[in-house]
Amino acid sequence: MRILSGMRSTGRLHLGNFITLEKWKELQDQGNECFYFVANWHGLTSHIDETSSFYDWSLDIVRTYVSAGLDPEKSVLFIQSAIKEHAELFLYFSMLVSVSRLERVPTYKDQKEQITDRDLSSGGFLLYPVLQAADILMYLATGVPVGEDQIYHVELTREIARKFNNQFAEVFPEPEPILAKVPKLPGTDGRKMSKSYGNYILIDTDEKELWKMIAPMMTDPARMRRTDRGDPEKCPVWDYHKAFTTSDEEKRWVVEGCKTAGIGCIECKRLLHKNLVQRLSPVWEKLSHLKENSDELFEIIEDGNKKAREVAKGTMKRVIEATKLGW
Amino acid sequence: MRILSGMRSTGRLHLGNFITLEKWKELQDQGNECFYFVANWHGLTSHIDETSSFYDWSLDIVRTYVSAGLDPEKSVLFIQSAIKEHAELFLYFSMLVSVSRLERVPTYKDQKEQITDRDLSSGGFLLYPVLQAADILMYLATGVPVGEDQIYHVELTREIARKFNNQFAEVFPEPEPILAKVPKLPGTDGRKMSKSYGNYILIDTDEKELWKMIAPMMTDPARMRRTDRGDPEKCPVWDYHKAFTTSDEEKRWVVEGCKTAGIGCIECKRLLHKNLVQRLSPVWEKLSHLKENSDELFEIIEDGNKKAREVAKGTMKRVIEATKLGW
Ligand code: SF4
Ligand code: SF4
Repeated sequence: MRILSGMRSTGRLHLGNFITLEKWKELQDQGNECFYFVANWHGLTSHIDETSSFYDWSLDIVRTYVSAGLDPEKSVLFIQSAIKEHAELFLYFSMLVSVSRLERVPTYKDQKEQITDRDLSSGGFLLYPVLQAADILMYLATGVPVGEDQIYHVELTREIARKFNNQFAEVFPEPEPILAKVPKLPGTDGRKMSKSYGNYILIDTDEKELWKMIAPMMTDPARMRRTDRGDPEKCPVWDYHKAFTTSDEEKRWVVEGCKTAGIGCIECKRLLHKNLVQRLSPVWEKLSHLKENSDELFEIIEDGNKKAREVAKGTMKRVIEATKLGW
Repeated sequence: MRILSGMRSTGRLHLGNFITLEKWKELQDQGNECFYFVANWHGLTSHIDETSSFYDWSLDIVRTYVSAGLDPEKSVLFIQSAIKEHAELFLYFSMLVSVSRLERVPTYKDQKEQITDRDLSSGGFLLYPVLQAADILMYLATGVPVGEDQIYHVELTREIARKFNNQFAEVFPEPEPILAKVPKLPGTDGRKMSKSYGNYILIDTDEKELWKMIAPMMTDPARMRRTDRGDPEKCPVWDYHKAFTTSDEEKRWVVEGCKTAGIGCIECKRLLHKNLVQRLSPVWEKLSHLKENSDELFEIIEDGNKKAREVAKGTMKRVIEATKLGW
């Protein structure tokens, strides 16, 4: 399969993203042809006041991609704004979707309702899924790893592909969503992860800092004292265990210990810390290698951009032949 | 002044356009730095079913630009889709205008109500004025010759320029609309000019064909017989005289002759024909020269595209420095 996915350049990556990256790595290691990018133009839709940080965040994201196991020899890692063709295809696709269709996209309605501290009134935000369709179809992707909330966007992408093919000529495949069956991580305080709450754990951290984030984590509120019994299903720490504790035995130890008050929350958190350190140590090693050798990172990005650009140029050639709008 | 304007590649040019071109020529001959382009991406918003004709229409339009006196040595004549930067700037600008602002643009509401034989529901159509702003500001234009109905679009362009400058850095001037004080030509049947009515006179025609269009023109409906008195203000032929008959004496002859039934409508139309032939003959000559020497036309376009691209690249460099979204 041809795979495409990306992350927005609106901050540094956290453990929630790490789970996604592991899924991406899996797709890569299964021998799929993968394109993973940094969506810095998408960042504009919600974070226009912070573009001055986008460059650093973008570097940070690619560094984390590579450190988490995305292999630039196997996958194409690139930056959206380096491939101007995305903007051109976005323009074409904007002609193929109705305003009312876009207004019905569930994420559009939801985010407009829920996010009150950012200005989401722009035309660009309404057309967000159109730019996403351009990202996906530019690489003729057939599979798009997404979270549940993004399935609708892939559906819209399929519609746009169909509409283009009918209107002009058969150029685009209709990509399938690849639903990652991974637990969704809550914030360390049990709320939704959010930059403004500061309630998430960065991938790029170290043993000591990691403990500083885990130690004060929210637990089952009913477990006030060491002797109170708890319910893991009501505890964010358990969500993290489900994602990062692989041994069944350890998981049983947590569940039984919690329910019987056989273990304390601190012990439970220490186990999580241990497992996370184990899982992240090789990532941290690569991260610091790439920080010390920034040339290497820049080379990876240049190389990825070049490969992506080549594919994008090929697609636009076909688009222009089909629409007869070239010059 | 730096001037920018364009015409959409949705058909061949008619006498209404000719009046506009004369205005453009005036601006050029006054020594302004002029950029005149063919808006073929704009054509997509309303004529997506006819893109296969856009190439020929675009050639036709530039040929007519040159024949009507736009001098490629003085003005930059180019094709929108050849300058990919327009799409990129369009993407940026889409983040700077709210959906509700765009929905309030009078031409958007009007056209959605009035034009029922075309699909104007697309996101691209809603964002039409944003693409127009990108066209204008790409060349840092300070003056935009427009018809009355487009003044609002220039106002929106000024808003976008202001918003960008405030948000990022002072890059764009706020262009002024240049209102052409020219009579608006009706169709030959008195209705609005429209391709579906076939009621307009092409610039690229000849003496005989021109008469075939003028002879059956609608006149003052009250003037049924030669002996009836007429009122020029109720007659489309008079609108054409106002635009193309320059001699005051001839105009007086029409008005008095019409009001007193001193002249017949055929005589009146013959005068219009004579004056149009005189006005258009040099244009027809250049048109046929350029048809016989298509290399010359292609060279003009290539050269114009090159000059436009250079300016566009310069602007995008500044945009990218300002937004820090380059790579
Ligand atoms: S023991 Fe573990 S799962 Fe149970 S409440 Fe404490 S931290 Fe949560
Ligand atoms: S005389 Fe001329 S202006 Fe008067 S109605 Fe006839 S065509 Fe029209």
